[in-house]
Amino acid sequence: MAEVLSGITLKAIGIVRNGIRQPPKQGWGNVVSDIVVNSSLTEALDNLDEFSHIIVLYWMHQAATGQLPTKVHPMGNQKLPTVGLFASRSPNRPNPVGKATVRLLKRQGNLLKVEGLDAVDGTPVIDIKPYIPGYDSATDATVPSWITNK
Amino acid sequence: MAEVLSGITLKAIGIVRNGIRQPPKQGWGNVVSDIVVNSSLTEALDNLDEFSHIIVLYWMHQAATGQLPTKVHPMGNQKLPTVGLFASRSPNRPNPVGKATVRLLKRQGNLLKVEGLDAVDGTPVIDIKPYIPGYDSATDATVPSWITNK
Repeated sequence: MAEVLSGITLKAIGIVRNGIRQPPKQGWGNVVSDIVVNSSLTEALDNLDEFSHIIVLYWMHQAATGQLPTKVHPMGNQKLPTVGLFASRSPNRPNPVGKATVRLLKRQGNLLKVEGLDAVDGTPVIDIKPYIPGYDSATDATVPSWITNK
Repeated sequence: MAEVLSGITLKAIGIVRNGIRQPPKQGWGNVVSDIVVNSSLTEALDNLDEFSHIIVLYWMHQAATGQLPTKVHPMGNQKLPTVGLFASRSPNRPNPVGKATVRLLKRQGNLLKVEGLDAVDGTPVIDIKPYIPGYDSATDATVPSWITNK
């Protein structure tokens, strides 16, 4: 489906702990999770708590593998017409890397307590970045109606 | 430095084309790039141009490898005190995955024309997602003064 990047390995820099095994029906907005970062990287978290929000990249290890459809129903809603896979946030993508913008509630050593991370317990975390308004946001962004009129 | 995720391969779903070999001094804000997506994935781009902005995840193939420092000068500015690596956007991270929010100017077949992508020519693209305000943005985000007072 796409060319393999040879010689590249991904490293888990940490893991999500929230006791949640299935996506909650009411959504992830209020879910509080711990990101347990490898203790060898504790120092690399210094100053992160000077930001109110962080970006978490994680490996959606439960995503489907093998041949993927190029068209999907948005948000898994069968009532909506299919759209291109890359116009969706489906976890079943060529590289199942999730990206979440979450509130950082607390950092304590190698532990980050965050709110709103949409990842099940045991999800490997591959990167953490500070959220920078302006660079990471777009004030004039528009979306199609099938996103807003679920 | 961190545990390797075994059995995981990353695939290039496309490549950045902009003729730029070095980060431009004036910044990337006005740089227009083409993302040439693998033609086998053309259909997966359908409906993406109904969004004004997209998120591009890319592999920063020129990033340093090997032993990385856990503390860095923010934005490479030696005048600023060092901060933890994950409190920075330095490309030299355990997994050098870049994340950019960019304006989608045009989609034509397997070609995406975008504005503001901070990636040099030849950068492998690993994922493309629609930018969804509210989910991808945080209206009340705050940052430390060393980000704003360069």
